[in-house]
Amino acid sequence: MKIIETVADFHAVRKHLPSTATVGLVPTMGGLHVGHLSLVREARKKCDIVAASIFVNPTQFGPNEDYSKYPRTFESDVALLKQEGVDLVFFPSADDMYSKNHRCYVAPEGFDALPEGICRPGHFRGVATVVAKLFNIVRPTHAFFGQKDAAQCVLIKRLVEDLSMDIQIQVVDVCREQDGLAMSTRNQYLEPDERKVASVVYRGLTRARDVFLSQKQGEAAAIDAELLRTAIRQEYESEPFVNEIQYISVGSKETMEELEFVSLKEGAILSVAVKLGKCRLIDTLTL
Amino acid sequence: MKIIETVADFHAVRKHLPSTATVGLVPTMGGLHVGHLSLVREARKKCDIVAASIFVNPTQFGPNEDYSKYPRTFESDVALLKQEGVDLVFFPSADDMYSKNHRCYVAPEGFDALPEGICRPGHFRGVATVVAKLFNIVRPTHAFFGQKDAAQCVLIKRLVEDLSMDIQIQVVDVCREQDGLAMSTRNQYLEPDERKVASVVYRGLTRARDVFLSQKQGEAAAIDAELLRTAIRQEYESEPFVNEIQYISVGSKETMEELEFVSLKEGAILSVAVKLGKCRLIDTLTL
Repeated sequence: MKIIETVADFHAVRKHLPSTATVGLVPTMGGLHVGHLSLVREARKKCDIVAASIFVNPTQFGPNEDYSKYPRTFESDVALLKQEGVDLVFFPSADDMYSKNHRCYVAPEGFDALPEGICRPGHFRGVATVVAKLFNIVRPTHAFFGQKDAAQCVLIKRLVEDLSMDIQIQVVDVCREQDGLAMSTRNQYLEPDERKVASVVYRGLTRARDVFLSQKQGEAAAIDAELLRTAIRQEYESEPFVNEIQYISVGSKETMEELEFVSLKEGAILSVAVKLGKCRLIDTLTL
Repeated sequence: MKIIETVADFHAVRKHLPSTATVGLVPTMGGLHVGHLSLVREARKKCDIVAASIFVNPTQFGPNEDYSKYPRTFESDVALLKQEGVDLVFFPSADDMYSKNHRCYVAPEGFDALPEGICRPGHFRGVATVVAKLFNIVRPTHAFFGQKDAAQCVLIKRLVEDLSMDIQIQVVDVCREQDGLAMSTRNQYLEPDERKVASVVYRGLTRARDVFLSQKQGEAAAIDAELLRTAIRQEYESEPFVNEIQYISVGSKETMEELEFVSLKEGAILSVAVKLGKCRLIDTLTL
């Protein structure tokens, strides 16, 4: 496994890969857990060459977010990636990725108006910019993203089509702990008593799914999205450790835009963000 | 010479080019003249495979600009490109380049504050977006741009560095008519009596160069940029057909930002936009 630390070095390596090889990219911010490894395994199954990037991208963090304290666990990340048979690891510095004259950002219109965008203004611009850069550096034929960041997955698909990139985007299911909590690098911010009740986040989503499925047996073609939101909200309001519900969204599978009614045939993406203590948790479930 | 009319078809062709081949791209909006052909010749000299694109890009035109009446001369453009030994011509439709769900633009910060950006709000966002798309479609190793669009050349260099593209940008000198008028597709908008005096645009620039060079023989390290602007302005004000001076800029070679003083060692980029009748002319000269 080769570790490459600059954009220029990766360009040099990329030039010499055979043009017929499939190249799979798993972009990460490090702090690897089983969720990331499921992406790597998927890439390993599908592609001749597997690359993973480890880069805590400053432009996708807001000024009051956890950029400086985000977990950085390079040694153990590298050991895990090696174990999974990764070929190339890209581990650049922030200075190498963003020169002091940096001016060009990829701006995805409309995403700051989505619930996650309202909570994190500028976040999706940072994500789109860094992913565009990683795609130009690694030049993958396939790239792998986790469904947990539901709006991010929709964004990346738009990025590839809008900027005419020849890359197949594969979205991989959420990995969960035994109690249902979605795996996340940020779960380590949870205090022990918060961790004990954190499965409530997923339970809210499954309760909404139950409501959706029960309606499916009836005659109606669609269900009022508010019924789904209410099912989730009731679950969260019953848990005292949930001290803030940032959003409960029932969005379109194509655009993540909020739905008034959910077609029982077409479904929707449920996505939520709540705070347990100081820890912000997001989760998603596709109907 | 192969003409390719969709993004998907170009992706399919690109996959089968040898990975060691150098690929030169000359992006154009058609309406080809000798200036474009000088870019093609440069590409032909440097690269194994030469691609040219012909695409009148709607996103770089303002609502009151000449998008619909911009010259479209596909048949003669293709004949010229064939004569110059071009291998691939990319000629997509606007609908294929911009789907109705298009959301992601490449936004170059600061460029709308440059003189050309103030005249054409949103122009540089459109240019950056379409060039990023063309780069992702053609995947050139080299790309060729004319110096006439001075701010555009600075922008494209920023784009490539900021989005980490592995592409060499080659800027080619302005091609001029015998009287000094910079070649441009839009010159055909000039009425015959306007055409007769249109060399005034370049004459203003050479007058400023004379001032610059005369100072170079002295002791000073820098010259007041206003002296250069005044030399140009006097030339334009003496020509009655010039009915509007949109800007006279003395800008940094790195960023195009306006200079107060010009270092006699480092020089600057002079750039201007004036209207002769209804026709808007731009020109540039590097000191």
